[in-house]
Amino acid sequence: MSQSPTGPRYSALTVDLPATVPFVGPETQERARGRKFRARIGANESVFGPSPKAAAAMAVAAPLGWMYCDPENHDLKVALAAFHGVGAENIVVGEGIDALLGYSVRLTVDPGSVVVTSLGAYPTFNFHVAGFGGRLVRVPYDGDREDPAALLEAARREDARLIYFANPDNPMGSWWPDADVARLIAGVPAGALLLLDEAYSDTAPAGTLPPLDVTNPAVLRLRTFSKAYGLAGLRVGYAIGEAGVVRSFDKIRNHFGVNRVAQVGALAALADQAYLVETVGRIAEARRRIAGIAADNGLAALPSATNFVTIDCGRDGAYAKRVLGELVARDVFVRMPGVAPLDRCIRVSAGRADDLAVLAEALPQALAAAARG
Amino acid sequence: MSQSPTGPRYSALTVDLPATVPFVGPETQERARGRKFRARIGANESVFGPSPKAAAAMAVAAPLGWMYCDPENHDLKVALAAFHGVGAENIVVGEGIDALLGYSVRLTVDPGSVVVTSLGAYPTFNFHVAGFGGRLVRVPYDGDREDPAALLEAARREDARLIYFANPDNPMGSWWPDADVARLIAGVPAGALLLLDEAYSDTAPAGTLPPLDVTNPAVLRLRTFSKAYGLAGLRVGYAIGEAGVVRSFDKIRNHFGVNRVAQVGALAALADQAYLVETVGRIAEARRRIAGIAADNGLAALPSATNFVTIDCGRDGAYAKRVLGELVARDVFVRMPGVAPLDRCIRVSAGRADDLAVLAEALPQALAAAARG
Repeated sequence: MSQSPTGPRYSALTVDLPATVPFVGPETQERARGRKFRARIGANESVFGPSPKAAAAMAVAAPLGWMYCDPENHDLKVALAAFHGVGAENIVVGEGIDALLGYSVRLTVDPGSVVVTSLGAYPTFNFHVAGFGGRLVRVPYDGDREDPAALLEAARREDARLIYFANPDNPMGSWWPDADVARLIAGVPAGALLLLDEAYSDTAPAGTLPPLDVTNPAVLRLRTFSKAYGLAGLRVGYAIGEAGVVRSFDKIRNHFGVNRVAQVGALAALADQAYLVETVGRIAEARRRIAGIAADNGLAALPSATNFVTIDCGRDGAYAKRVLGELVARDVFVRMPGVAPLDRCIRVSAGRADDLAVLAEALPQALAAAARG
Repeated sequence: MSQSPTGPRYSALTVDLPATVPFVGPETQERARGRKFRARIGANESVFGPSPKAAAAMAVAAPLGWMYCDPENHDLKVALAAFHGVGAENIVVGEGIDALLGYSVRLTVDPGSVVVTSLGAYPTFNFHVAGFGGRLVRVPYDGDREDPAALLEAARREDARLIYFANPDNPMGSWWPDADVARLIAGVPAGALLLLDEAYSDTAPAGTLPPLDVTNPAVLRLRTFSKAYGLAGLRVGYAIGEAGVVRSFDKIRNHFGVNRVAQVGALAALADQAYLVETVGRIAEARRRIAGIAADNGLAALPSATNFVTIDCGRDGAYAKRVLGELVARDVFVRMPGVAPLDRCIRVSAGRADDLAVLAEALPQALAAAARG
């Protein structure tokens, strides 16, 4: 009866995929280094933490974690709908924007379908596109901003199924005014879906976010509790869109996937807008401080609409990579853009005064060491 | 520039999928009914709750939820590896067994690939198979147990990529001894992967679980913190298997998908084995009480190795469905198997004395009403 086991046959779409992680986490680096970072300002987390009311609500919810979550995410969805002035049927909640991007790709991409994004934009999105066999077409940034006109042009030329556009942008911190984004939305070719990643919407200046229009099935607006709300580890993101598009996620999503404690935490965080405003103020202050530290070292900080500041190291990618390595060696967790010409920069997340004092101490040393290298 | 938006083109695999949820949650039913259940004993949750140490650890972790989770799930994985006497490279942690089943299907199923399961087994698995275009071949239960020999025979005949087998079984609560399961594992045809769902392993009698063999790439053992550990709402499951098969999940998983608070909670729950033993004792006591309530009403309770008891209502599916409806109408949340002949039963999860007192009160009334109906 027994026979020699051979293991699984893998599907055509996955057999040749690399076993990779889009980002190496700071904990992985700490384990490899054998010591902790002194400043964790590399993953655009909110070191200011979540609303204390959200933390308290989660503590109360923890012993009730024996219950599966509500697969409809009803209470959170209704609260978000009221907050945004749309219907509950216009919102899908997921395990972070990451999961929603994956579902969006799975819903629209056949093997060989074209997906348009910017060269240097969010790697996790590219990971999902590769995972479903899409063909990525990457459009260069225009200066340090994504290029809406070029994205549209590529989408039309290549008959794209999906267009990815982040506003404000990661990793550059740049942004487009609402009128330009509205023009991008209006220009989406027939049969394409625009994924408008607004993870950094909470820190964007007024006039950045075009009005929501949930009658338009050509765009999904992606939002998250991971940034200014300070709940990155809880994994709660959502998309706002036309009801039919939103309903399509029910075809494939992990219905019981959004943690019960996370739903409770996000709901409480949403209700505490005063804390959000306070946090956004702290982030703005941290951005100014980071820009000041950059200037003290003769470097230019890019303008930022996000919870991080991208610093131009003024030379090429190899040099910026050395600067980054020297910062990491000095126990400062930061990251950098992955491709040229963006990779002349390093990216520093908003930190508390203590975190930024560590940066202020380490940066001149790192620059000196990198210059020698 | 503006044009009439048409919305997305859907992928071939998803365009015709129904927008459905595999299970309607109790909260959805409560909203529809306009009132709460008095006893929540339908989803095989552990109403006894998680270890207080796990709840306390999660409360401490909540304010630290601003940090993304460790995408390697390192600490939990290492603890699980030590607990099971395998390597960390033999374990993949995911957002519940549900997510791991979805990843397993995506990794192995091409459109048209055959997947073998039992007629009436876990619907969420079938949801994933349909979602990736697999062709489900369903083998009838043998009495009230899944039929290992018939599953193997079908897998061989149909050249299956995947075989799903739950031991102990849901929804019947039945189980096979380890020797039979070992024979099933040994018989897996070349090129197939056996998904051995052991969600109910913690409540199974001794002699149910064959030894782990992480040199065998033909089987994945799926475990969870959702059942006896009382953390269903936290979404932490894991699979134990051969290192190469385990590594393949890195190709596609949502790397940052397992909530930071959940990782901390699961780690603390694992460390509190005394509480687990206590809970398993309470579950056994509840099973006896449920069987007693069934007997008091002239019904037979099936033997159970799980945290629920399946009660044979003694007539057909239409009758059991009426009994279930009458219980729900009396504010008792229970569920039932979906297909004949299993659907002559209702399924009652282990409850506290209070929960089961509600059942004891409602069941005779429900049976009387169903008999009239």
